[in-house]
Amino acid sequence: MPRVTQEHVDARRAQILAGARRAFARYGYEGATVVRLEEEIGLSRGAIFNYFPDKLAIFVALAAETNRVYVHLILERGLATAIREMANESPEWLASLIEIESRMRHDPDFVERFRRAHEPEADAIAHWFADQQAGGVFRADVDFRDLGRFATMVINGLALRIAGEEPYDVESVLRLLTDARAPRT
Amino acid sequence: MPRVTQEHVDARRAQILAGARRAFARYGYEGATVVRLEEEIGLSRGAIFNYFPDKLAIFVALAAETNRVYVHLILERGLATAIREMANESPEWLASLIEIESRMRHDPDFVERFRRAHEPEADAIAHWFADQQAGGVFRADVDFRDLGRFATMVINGLALRIAGEEPYDVESVLRLLTDARAPRT
Repeated sequence: MPRVTQEHVDARRAQILAGARRAFARYGYEGATVVRLEEEIGLSRGAIFNYFPDKLAIFVALAAETNRVYVHLILERGLATAIREMANESPEWLASLIEIESRMRHDPDFVERFRRAHEPEADAIAHWFADQQAGGVFRADVDFRDLGRFATMVINGLALRIAGEEPYDVESVLRLLTDARAPRT
Repeated sequence: MPRVTQEHVDARRAQILAGARRAFARYGYEGATVVRLEEEIGLSRGAIFNYFPDKLAIFVALAAETNRVYVHLILERGLATAIREMANESPEWLASLIEIESRMRHDPDFVERFRRAHEPEADAIAHWFADQQAGGVFRADVDFRDLGRFATMVINGLALRIAGEEPYDVESVLRLLTDARAPRT
């Protein structure tokens, strides 16, 4: 058996995730059959399921990766950068994410795998909101958890609009969100 | 052929919509088979499809009815009342609405039927935001359409949280939304 390098494993996983993302965006979760996954990824089912146990695992990895990218943007470059970045996201991929997460929320296996994949980012983002509040950047008269939840609602509401290809002005969203969370004078 | 009164027609339509709402909430759109629709509604498929041409027409009617209820709450009793009311909505039904609308956004027939069903409310709500701004209740330095879109994002983001059974504090949401759109001093 040939030795497989970590670089090779990482490259294959990245290839599988990129192709699967295209397949989910194009066909939805149910519609992304194994044949279509093979086509978009450019690998056989044997190779694909050598790296991921099943289709759900590929989806969970993709959703966690998307979440991680946005959390790191917020932590390193602030909410405004993350929200402006989301305005460039593929409407099809956002629609797939929303549709699949809504549909699978009663599958305990999915919920548990998803929770575990998101846990480190959930903690990091809660700390970030607490720090911003402690530093006087965010208002102090609303619990920092509720500030974080409100920002999440705006981000998810924006994702729904982008997915539905409905109009919005990202700078107005940022201005309103900034004023909502600003310290009260 | 017996004469059918308008009351009878209205009562049957209401019965069909209530049962179909339960079926969609419980099984999702695909899972709400004709057999399950018959069970939840308590009528035969012949009777059901005498009032609606197909399953999609039932879903569009339900989504339009939900939208109409919230728009009228906003127009008559304000945004806060509408948002507090949504906190009592069935998570299952909200999840179905979000999932189905996301999934069907590429079906031109659905998009067109949905648009037509929502048109009167879309106009009414745009006028309401323009009036609130003209009356000095909402800030004047952001386009009233963007104020309406921001409120919609918050409402939809809250609907996603309720659907996902995630924690939120409705009074914090209202306070942040109110401060976001308040006139700048």
